[in-house]
Amino acid sequence: MHHCIIERYESLIVYLFMKLTTRFALLFVLLHNISFFAIAQQSPQVATVAPGVKKLTSGQPEKFSPYSFCGEKPMVAEMSRLPEAKLPFNVNDIKINVSDRGAVIEIPLDNEEQLYGFGLQMGSFNQKGLRKKPIVNDNPSHDLGYSHAPMPFYVSNKGYGILVNTSHYTTFYCGSTAKNTGAVHVNDGKSGNSVEELYKNDRPASGYVAVDVPGVQGVEVYIFEGPDLINVLQRYNLFSGGGALPAMWGLGVKYRVKADFNQQQVEKMADYFRANDIPCDVLGLEPKWQTTAYSCSYVWNKDFFPDHDKFIDTMKTKGFHINLWEHAFVNPKSPLYVPLKNKSGDYLVWNGLVPDFVDPAASKLFADYHKDTFVLKGISGFKMDECDNSNLTTGNATWSFPEHSRFPSGINGEQMHQVFGVVYQKTVYNIYKELNTRTFLDVRSSNAFASSYPASLYSDTYNHHEYIQMISNSGFSGLIWSPEVRESRSVADLMRRSQTAVLSAQTLYNSWYLQNPPWLQINRDKNNKNEFMENAKAVEADVRKLLNFRMSLVPYLYSAFADYHTKGIPPFRALVVDYPTDPKVFNIDDEYMIGQGILAAPLTENSDERKVYLPAGNWYDFNTRKKYPGRQEYIIKTSYTDLPIFVKEGTILPLARPVEYISPETRFELTCYVYGDQPKPFSLFEDDGVTFDFEKGKYNTLSLSYQNGKGVVKKTGAFKGSRYYLKSWEVIR
Amino acid sequence: MHHCIIERYESLIVYLFMKLTTRFALLFVLLHNISFFAIAQQSPQVATVAPGVKKLTSGQPEKFSPYSFCGEKPMVAEMSRLPEAKLPFNVNDIKINVSDRGAVIEIPLDNEEQLYGFGLQMGSFNQKGLRKKPIVNDNPSHDLGYSHAPMPFYVSNKGYGILVNTSHYTTFYCGSTAKNTGAVHVNDGKSGNSVEELYKNDRPASGYVAVDVPGVQGVEVYIFEGPDLINVLQRYNLFSGGGALPAMWGLGVKYRVKADFNQQQVEKMADYFRANDIPCDVLGLEPKWQTTAYSCSYVWNKDFFPDHDKFIDTMKTKGFHINLWEHAFVNPKSPLYVPLKNKSGDYLVWNGLVPDFVDPAASKLFADYHKDTFVLKGISGFKMDECDNSNLTTGNATWSFPEHSRFPSGINGEQMHQVFGVVYQKTVYNIYKELNTRTFLDVRSSNAFASSYPASLYSDTYNHHEYIQMISNSGFSGLIWSPEVRESRSVADLMRRSQTAVLSAQTLYNSWYLQNPPWLQINRDKNNKNEFMENAKAVEADVRKLLNFRMSLVPYLYSAFADYHTKGIPPFRALVVDYPTDPKVFNIDDEYMIGQGILAAPLTENSDERKVYLPAGNWYDFNTRKKYPGRQEYIIKTSYTDLPIFVKEGTILPLARPVEYISPETRFELTCYVYGDQPKPFSLFEDDGVTFDFEKGKYNTLSLSYQNGKGVVKKTGAFKGSRYYLKSWEVIR
Repeated sequence: MHHCIIERYESLIVYLFMKLTTRFALLFVLLHNISFFAIAQQSPQVATVAPGVKKLTSGQPEKFSPYSFCGEKPMVAEMSRLPEAKLPFNVNDIKINVSDRGAVIEIPLDNEEQLYGFGLQMGSFNQKGLRKKPIVNDNPSHDLGYSHAPMPFYVSNKGYGILVNTSHYTTFYCGSTAKNTGAVHVNDGKSGNSVEELYKNDRPASGYVAVDVPGVQGVEVYIFEGPDLINVLQRYNLFSGGGALPAMWGLGVKYRVKADFNQQQVEKMADYFRANDIPCDVLGLEPKWQTTAYSCSYVWNKDFFPDHDKFIDTMKTKGFHINLWEHAFVNPKSPLYVPLKNKSGDYLVWNGLVPDFVDPAASKLFADYHKDTFVLKGISGFKMDECDNSNLTTGNATWSFPEHSRFPSGINGEQMHQVFGVVYQKTVYNIYKELNTRTFLDVRSSNAFASSYPASLYSDTYNHHEYIQMISNSGFSGLIWSPEVRESRSVADLMRRSQTAVLSAQTLYNSWYLQNPPWLQINRDKNNKNEFMENAKAVEADVRKLLNFRMSLVPYLYSAFADYHTKGIPPFRALVVDYPTDPKVFNIDDEYMIGQGILAAPLTENSDERKVYLPAGNWYDFNTRKKYPGRQEYIIKTSYTDLPIFVKEGTILPLARPVEYISPETRFELTCYVYGDQPKPFSLFEDDGVTFDFEKGKYNTLSLSYQNGKGVVKKTGAFKGSRYYLKSWEVIR
Repeated sequence: MHHCIIERYESLIVYLFMKLTTRFALLFVLLHNISFFAIAQQSPQVATVAPGVKKLTSGQPEKFSPYSFCGEKPMVAEMSRLPEAKLPFNVNDIKINVSDRGAVIEIPLDNEEQLYGFGLQMGSFNQKGLRKKPIVNDNPSHDLGYSHAPMPFYVSNKGYGILVNTSHYTTFYCGSTAKNTGAVHVNDGKSGNSVEELYKNDRPASGYVAVDVPGVQGVEVYIFEGPDLINVLQRYNLFSGGGALPAMWGLGVKYRVKADFNQQQVEKMADYFRANDIPCDVLGLEPKWQTTAYSCSYVWNKDFFPDHDKFIDTMKTKGFHINLWEHAFVNPKSPLYVPLKNKSGDYLVWNGLVPDFVDPAASKLFADYHKDTFVLKGISGFKMDECDNSNLTTGNATWSFPEHSRFPSGINGEQMHQVFGVVYQKTVYNIYKELNTRTFLDVRSSNAFASSYPASLYSDTYNHHEYIQMISNSGFSGLIWSPEVRESRSVADLMRRSQTAVLSAQTLYNSWYLQNPPWLQINRDKNNKNEFMENAKAVEADVRKLLNFRMSLVPYLYSAFADYHTKGIPPFRALVVDYPTDPKVFNIDDEYMIGQGILAAPLTENSDERKVYLPAGNWYDFNTRKKYPGRQEYIIKTSYTDLPIFVKEGTILPLARPVEYISPETRFELTCYVYGDQPKPFSLFEDDGVTFDFEKGKYNTLSLSYQNGKGVVKKTGAFKGSRYYLKSWEVIR
């Protein structure tokens, strides 16, 4: 018996020794910097996680991935209604190599295909051939890939999307790095004699996209399948919980007042809007409403807003929603400071705490305070500033927290930078969601899987061409972008920027350093001295016309956002999304689709006319009603008060009589414009515009069609109210 | 007995189980991304590695550190002659924390002290309060810390230097990130009402420098002690093997011809110099001398240089050295391609191999080929281009290799980027060193511990103010910088840039895209059409005067470089190096010392006069001979043909009669200018100027002094030749 026991012990010992030895070997690998040794080189695991969405896993994926912060469930039913998913390559051809440096992913790339995405890029559009570092930063210089809302996510016109589910800083090499395979590449060595020719480099196509993900022990890759590019975007948005549906008033006009305005000054500005019949739904307050701003106290400055709650109510009766500027860095004077002290990162920003929003307890403290102090008092939304990082030394290195910061949840500073805008949005959005109240927020940073947040990005960069390009880019990544208007170099600049703002997701005038609206004085200094332009009233009238058009467009836009929510179709999207096989649109970044039937081609101050390429089909100039055959380029002239838009043949476009603001009682008087002889029905979305009841089915679909010379409206759905009055129909041929 | 055995087994089993449990816990930490858990938090080990140089080690330091590539031995004897080393803080106050993310180092920082360095920075000078990422890149935009020659190395005016011995990308937070200690920081929350005041951020001083070194399992930190800042730089340079001593001809004038010039055109240009008495020592050939350039064949283009070896010899007889442009990326058509195929990285650049210069076998192949094909045929040096990385999308993402590249030696792409310029320099420099022939190279990138390489950095950025600033910055990091002259916006720009070039380590005209010297036509297009300026001959005469002054300065400069080699004193250095306690010089980046007694204050095209701050002591305007008391600022006017320099009282300045080029036979006719009544002796360095024999003692020191109204020369040393003829003395009072 003893012998027997010994034998049993012996085999156990041998087993334990073997285990130990293995562990030691592994430890040796982990602890010593043997770069060439790959820890995990096995094939990635492939799983289908939703209809047309695959997940590849290799090694030990990170805990704090972007998808881990997605609070919304995939809209699986809606996804299963899409055309059958298809990939243009074999999923097993994606290679993932995990080493002690991190992960490197290689995805097949066809020589002919075009790549887009990486979040809110500015400076580039078609990303094929480029090296991109999608890193959160307000300083996107030289098109490195830095952006307020970068994403490790690109899509191809061949109908698929690749999302690397990492919060680490990454580099994507989009098809231009060639490997040393030992083979001699084609290179005839011939170069001309001119200096230019000598330096014309040989640029082979590599046949793959390489993604460098340093600092991880493994990685997940999400693949969004087509068959078409638009289906890829639909799947991405639906997988993220469906696109955002802002409160209806959010689609009106937003005006941010000067940073140091007090209660009386804001009220005076509100009265100016109403007295002059200029539409405005939201007034945004900038830093001075708080006792401390950099960092934030989240406490009303009673010197400036002595009756803040009454002020909110008064504004509400006049049809204004109030939006508050803030950032997330908590000043020692804030009531949130002591509760958050141990739920924040180990570094301060502007002497303020960086709340660990990854920890639900920290988010809850922040949210509860905001709910009680502001949201329940009637504050309709927030401008969540400074949640991006900055590389600019203007100011100095104190801008945001170091990458090596540590947070109690375990996330580090680098990862937190990448997701800070997302977890901040989630924290604030959930206040509204839990109160069954919709909102439209402003946010300075975002990342992947954030399609469902009704928050508009903005920037200080202010290049008008880039602002237009960002509208096109936003649609590839489930983002909402607001090309805001500040001061201007010329009236032409003001008017063209205003047109772009009207033709974007949020029409915003940001006068945080202007005493008066920019249309009264474009020059900052004169504006602040109350010196108006000679033609101020004429310019004001022109701006009024544009903003009235914006209000006319709200029902159409709102339905486009409903499509974004329920079908995942981006309301603003580059032409290549709808026309992925037309090479002429591959590089068009300054034209985009709005909803189903409108093509926008904004102008800048440089000229009153521009080249417009119209894709397949026939198109109508909205202003002249002239019909243009597609697949051609035209030179189109547009005045300041017209909008540079084209309507696709077959569209039914409902336009409203402008209102000055949108309340739950607003009933839009619609004229339906029917373009061409065979119009397709248009689905108008109807609900209360302010609650989430539509998610429980309390909405209507008004199907607008035009048959046998007359308009037909078919209403279905469970919403009891009526937001639209169909006044008339007009056919354009 | 059995019982006994069982007991022994039992205790062994318990022991093994305990070990296993520990290992499992550790493994869990390593394999799961639990960022908050520090793997190694023990105190760093401290060792003294040379007189006044300490090394701190924590965790497992990386194999491919910058110091691992330093081929030179520390000059310990010279270091031990420096004043006694001293640190202003306790070395144990440096904290190193190694976690799964990497290492974070904290170094104490006094509120009053000023920081400099990080290699060849442009855009910033005093680094206190900034966040710097010393990463190799030709695109140093927004002063992120990117540079051709970045270094994880800063120095303090309090007399110490900190070098993080890593090839990984790092971030230095120079005293501006505050920690969440739980304490409420001083912040009165008072901000004014103006917009500017609202956004004036609170910027606490943090009391430490934090260094983020992601991706390492441990780190070494070198501390260079003072007591004074200059001693810190001396220790650093001597520890790196002593500063470079270029071939004497390298201190003359270098001219790079147009990239597509053929043999006849180069010869014609050479004749132009001699016929017009314009000094020139080196002619540089640009890409077209090779059969393929991007990437390189390293094979003479016989269409352009049919008699290349004879050409070299002919040029030599006319006193010209030939320098060849190249980069290190090996074209498939190169004879080096097949031998290097398996000794290169796994990615190509411009279809060319990236040789693994970390592997001595790869270096040897590259060096041997260059030795046989070029150096033994008389090529005097190389311009080692494109060994920096690039973030510019001009061109495209193919510029250089990905960070995730792998090399047979085990180094990865990120590390290789940081050290590529260094290992490339080392490879080429050693060819010359082994042949006992000195050189003066051009190189596009460098890093730490490279002081001993006689290679001048250059850039495409071309901002004149930054070029001046980089002269000041180069001295903090053992670097040689060449503010080259190309075309110009105006004659004023050309002349002021020429002055700066004359007052720098290398006087270089880079006409790689100019048919004619820029002094004949400043405009690029006209220059290439051979349309000369009306006043071309007058401008040429003015440039000739400046270049002649350069040649006058060579003996003085050569001695300054000898001091660099034997004492580690940077020949070009910011005023703060010599005057570390004068707050007025803390931010002066556009004045610098040359050798012991000259202060340069270059002008740009903007004005013919500038503010010049003169530090303690009395100073003489070199041109007017007017005496100025120091510790004051003056407005000084300087013509195009004078040099904006000031001589310190007590200096003996030997100036030579200009020669057109420098050969081993050149004997300089010297006039010694004695400034003030109590001149200090000047040590003139004398050797053959072209071999390393001086390292074996074959050099002389000529001690020049002025006593009792006459000049005295004391010569000591073992060099048999005579390079100097003391013609006259002149006293300036």
